[in-house]
Amino acid sequence: MKINTTKETLLHGLQTVQRAVSAKNPLPVLSGIMFKSKNNVLKMTATDLEIGIECNVPVTTIEEGSIVIPAKYITEIVRKLPDVPIDLSADEESSTVLIKYSTSEAKLHGFNPDDFPTFPTVENEISFEISTRKLREMLKQVLFATSTDENRPVFTGVLFEISENLTLVATDTHRLALKKVSLPEELLPIKVIIPGRTLSELVRIMTNDDEEITITIGGSQALFALKDTVLVSRLIEGQFPAYDQVIPKNYKSRLRISVKDLLESAERAALLTRGGNQTIKLDIQKEMLIVTANTEIGEIHEEINIYLEGECMQVAFNASYLTDALRNIGSDEIYLELNGPLSPGVIKPVDKDDYLSLILPVRTA
Amino acid sequence: MKINTTKETLLHGLQTVQRAVSAKNPLPVLSGIMFKSKNNVLKMTATDLEIGIECNVPVTTIEEGSIVIPAKYITEIVRKLPDVPIDLSADEESSTVLIKYSTSEAKLHGFNPDDFPTFPTVENEISFEISTRKLREMLKQVLFATSTDENRPVFTGVLFEISENLTLVATDTHRLALKKVSLPEELLPIKVIIPGRTLSELVRIMTNDDEEITITIGGSQALFALKDTVLVSRLIEGQFPAYDQVIPKNYKSRLRISVKDLLESAERAALLTRGGNQTIKLDIQKEMLIVTANTEIGEIHEEINIYLEGECMQVAFNASYLTDALRNIGSDEIYLELNGPLSPGVIKPVDKDDYLSLILPVRTA
Repeated sequence: MKINTTKETLLHGLQTVQRAVSAKNPLPVLSGIMFKSKNNVLKMTATDLEIGIECNVPVTTIEEGSIVIPAKYITEIVRKLPDVPIDLSADEESSTVLIKYSTSEAKLHGFNPDDFPTFPTVENEISFEISTRKLREMLKQVLFATSTDENRPVFTGVLFEISENLTLVATDTHRLALKKVSLPEELLPIKVIIPGRTLSELVRIMTNDDEEITITIGGSQALFALKDTVLVSRLIEGQFPAYDQVIPKNYKSRLRISVKDLLESAERAALLTRGGNQTIKLDIQKEMLIVTANTEIGEIHEEINIYLEGECMQVAFNASYLTDALRNIGSDEIYLELNGPLSPGVIKPVDKDDYLSLILPVRTA
Repeated sequence: MKINTTKETLLHGLQTVQRAVSAKNPLPVLSGIMFKSKNNVLKMTATDLEIGIECNVPVTTIEEGSIVIPAKYITEIVRKLPDVPIDLSADEESSTVLIKYSTSEAKLHGFNPDDFPTFPTVENEISFEISTRKLREMLKQVLFATSTDENRPVFTGVLFEISENLTLVATDTHRLALKKVSLPEELLPIKVIIPGRTLSELVRIMTNDDEEITITIGGSQALFALKDTVLVSRLIEGQFPAYDQVIPKNYKSRLRISVKDLLESAERAALLTRGGNQTIKLDIQKEMLIVTANTEIGEIHEEINIYLEGECMQVAFNASYLTDALRNIGSDEIYLELNGPLSPGVIKPVDKDDYLSLILPVRTA
């Protein structure tokens, strides 16, 4: 392999794929990034066998070929290179790569590309397009509700359910977020669980807002294709809980409230509850919501104007769950729908009916 | 104590003093910040018994008094307050403080101000003024060469030596930095060692470039006074090494070289030496410096144009020591003066003779 390129081109590719590099896989070759030049394209690939990311960048190819280069060192060196033309040439015999810039050069020891796993293909697929802007917004609205507990894998993922619409659902069993969007065409119904980590990486690599992304779902893999980048991920096996049964159909009281007011109050109250039980109390009165917390650190009492429809009542929530939900709602005003101190609270944007998040209450007294 | 103030005023004071708060002192009251209102000034004080910082801010005092408030919670709550007038009132009996903002309020449990240590005074003093801009520049040029090894305290500090000039010297025994400045008036000669941590905090609180700072040095304390802020620190006891004997008076070769060129080359070479012996080699030729490193990660070979006066030679340095020295020199071009592979290298700005830093070589082969 021998190519001419620039620092900027290399860095774009490296930064795109490097999060798929395996941090602690026992297979040394997975600490590397596969470089493969063909025609005038350099394909960089990284995988930890769960996620794979591939990024194609335009270069001048002098000699086709491939090599695997340690991700950490190549990224750090490229980041420190001057802005001059860069020659990259691999000695396939010794598995080393020579990087030439101005009158200087660096040589890195790499790995044999034959040892690098092949990029997975997706079969039996269902495929659709969606704008990156829309997908990023959707993912942000549900990802916060995923669990990080690897012992119960289904809760670490997001359900992608295609029926008439595309519905995304995430829950860590204490809270749940649900987003619905219409699809451009009718598709076969399917339900798959995509790892939260995959989707977080996807959010990170969707840097261009005006692009379409193609999502392809196969038997055990999902594939996300942008113009120059492809991300493939395994799916999570298992049965996603019957979320419909958890979501209350009615409410006894509904508050209309400013997200900014409630979020800021909840954040201040949360400061006092950290390290403790994280409980903040909501006392819903006719035209006012009183947010309180009382811990060994101190007490807080906040008053917020609301519009109330229905009964006055009291309910307690985990402060972090409430602030997470409010930070990700993407609206200025919400409805908070309640059925009493032992029933979940449902948060919906005032101006849209395609989204809700739900928080189980904390039992007090 | 009862005062009217603003979020901005409180935050300025809290951020100024909070770094002196004791992170792990067994005395609980030292985790707090003393608030004392008198006339229309709120004095905030924090100390870990090594460093004390006091900041005076203008407020409207309704009732004079004092209280100690847990630093962590008051800072976080104030940071989250809305931009509205803020009432702070202490209940001295129960050692609690009530913070009122709009229609909401928070109460924090505090400590009895009688348990808070008194701010140290400085006696037998020598005192002089210097501009904050100049002092910050001086400190930056020497602080990097201090040691963090608490077992040898003198090397964790910076020598302040007043004779005809003020000379600052820092060394961790592997490298040394020395800065000289003239003083506005003649002072009694003195040599004291000020903790590096004190001086780092001082750099942080000197936010205004157009201010004079008064430095007062007593028997066991140094005091730094800005317009609204005072920092007091203990001095380090012990004998600072005879630095004059270490600095070579002559050189066999002197290179004139661009700081940017050498720094960038050394940084790239350093990437390959991390985790290893950190050694990079300089091969000084007639019009060129060749920087190389060779480790199990790979090899690097960089060429930099220089002006050489004297002999060609080879010398090896610790890569981090070289990059630290170059990052802090504050000039575009340096002289690197050498006496051979076993003698220290001396780095001086080309355009000034008030500063030098010195690095011991690494013995190779």
